[in-house]
Amino acid sequence: MQTWIRFRRPDGAIAHGRLDAAEADRVIEFDGPGYADPRPTGNEFRYASLQLLAPCQPGKIVALWNNFHALAARLEKSVPVHPLFLLKPASSLAGPGDAIERPAGYAGKIAYEGELGIVIGRECRNVPLDEAASHIFGYTIVNDVTAGELLNADPNFPQWTRAKGSDTFGCIGPAIVTGFDWRSASVVTRLDGVERQNYPLSDIVFSPEEQVSRLSQDMTLMPGDVIAVGTSIGVGSMKPGSVVEVSIGGIGSLVNHMRG
Amino acid sequence: MQTWIRFRRPDGAIAHGRLDAAEADRVIEFDGPGYADPRPTGNEFRYASLQLLAPCQPGKIVALWNNFHALAARLEKSVPVHPLFLLKPASSLAGPGDAIERPAGYAGKIAYEGELGIVIGRECRNVPLDEAASHIFGYTIVNDVTAGELLNADPNFPQWTRAKGSDTFGCIGPAIVTGFDWRSASVVTRLDGVERQNYPLSDIVFSPEEQVSRLSQDMTLMPGDVIAVGTSIGVGSMKPGSVVEVSIGGIGSLVNHMRG
Repeated sequence: MQTWIRFRRPDGAIAHGRLDAAEADRVIEFDGPGYADPRPTGNEFRYASLQLLAPCQPGKIVALWNNFHALAARLEKSVPVHPLFLLKPASSLAGPGDAIERPAGYAGKIAYEGELGIVIGRECRNVPLDEAASHIFGYTIVNDVTAGELLNADPNFPQWTRAKGSDTFGCIGPAIVTGFDWRSASVVTRLDGVERQNYPLSDIVFSPEEQVSRLSQDMTLMPGDVIAVGTSIGVGSMKPGSVVEVSIGGIGSLVNHMRG
Repeated sequence: MQTWIRFRRPDGAIAHGRLDAAEADRVIEFDGPGYADPRPTGNEFRYASLQLLAPCQPGKIVALWNNFHALAARLEKSVPVHPLFLLKPASSLAGPGDAIERPAGYAGKIAYEGELGIVIGRECRNVPLDEAASHIFGYTIVNDVTAGELLNADPNFPQWTRAKGSDTFGCIGPAIVTGFDWRSASVVTRLDGVERQNYPLSDIVFSPEEQVSRLSQDMTLMPGDVIAVGTSIGVGSMKPGSVVEVSIGGIGSLVNHMRG
């Protein structure tokens, strides 16, 4: 397991790095993201001195709906036979600590959705299931922010991307962890310190490997692309100033707040 | 009016250029796309010697549904109060002459949809209507290819992006024309030489300026992003080997074929 981050250095430059396995406060700088076969630059930093940024820069964020059995049961929907997804654009990206912004002209509720994120490491198209794992670089945490009242504002067309694609609605971080065992982990979401989601990833419908294989039949996935694997029960609304912390043991905690 | 293209040079390099207004076969090479304030490189080419590529490289393609009055009437749907859209990913991009590929594992119908495309020239977020035009670099032609039977394959979730986001389903070209007067133009689509669509752009619901202003409230639009403004009546299916030509007077003709 390796932990990769993207950060702003004390001198203001944006850089990539890996946490030292033996000394967690030591960050070894590399000349690119972990999936790009980078080389050490020779620079090192103290973790505490860095401003963390979203750990990758996805060209697209593929966001799944109805991918946990418990949520499907709550919604009284059948489990899908193929991943159901929308795209959140690159412009929706936000990093650890960033403020979530209310879209101009929208006065409705804005929800948090704590999720596991898959980070693609190698370009993949039509990848068989047994080769899918080799295209996954690692795992991160996603808060798949949603302006829920936009979704069904038009009776003829569910506006999934409009509801989930606004700037700052794709919160990702704090790190990418390689070799992460998602099967034994849970997603825990706290709203202003109160636990609101706590669900096991083992309840997932399509495993990460199944998602990569099947989605790669629908479109080419590129290095740095993120798949937000879907959320489960416990989604709720944020208010101005609300702090949302999404934690997955072994990856860390992603903390964002609603602009007050 | 200027006509900008992206192309493969005779030596294999990919480049950008502008057609000489006085001599249409003369291409003046620039060091970047037209919206990026490029400089002439000093190279010139004969248009006929070049392989045309998609004229821009959008980070996202925003594709509208139900944006023409004639189509809304045919569908017996009310006209929307805000643009209804999905995203086609960058990976769906295809250029003039490129083959349209059937997605692996999909045996259903694949439709052409001839459309006008708006090419964004300047980053825009929350742009007022009266400033929207200054963020439009120019106009191009889109064939918004659609695997129609995927759209409603799941009863709970219309799969717009899956149906329209496959590799090669975002055909764009042959050129970007600045200062184009869309109000007096029509979109004409021919399938194997037979006219199947011929509709006036003046029948549009949200004008290009309204689209840019309203969509910029939903997400930041970036230079090179393309808005496919939606199609009207006459959509139909392609077969292996079918040739589809989408023409807009003043821009040109975009020709693609289904892989035979």
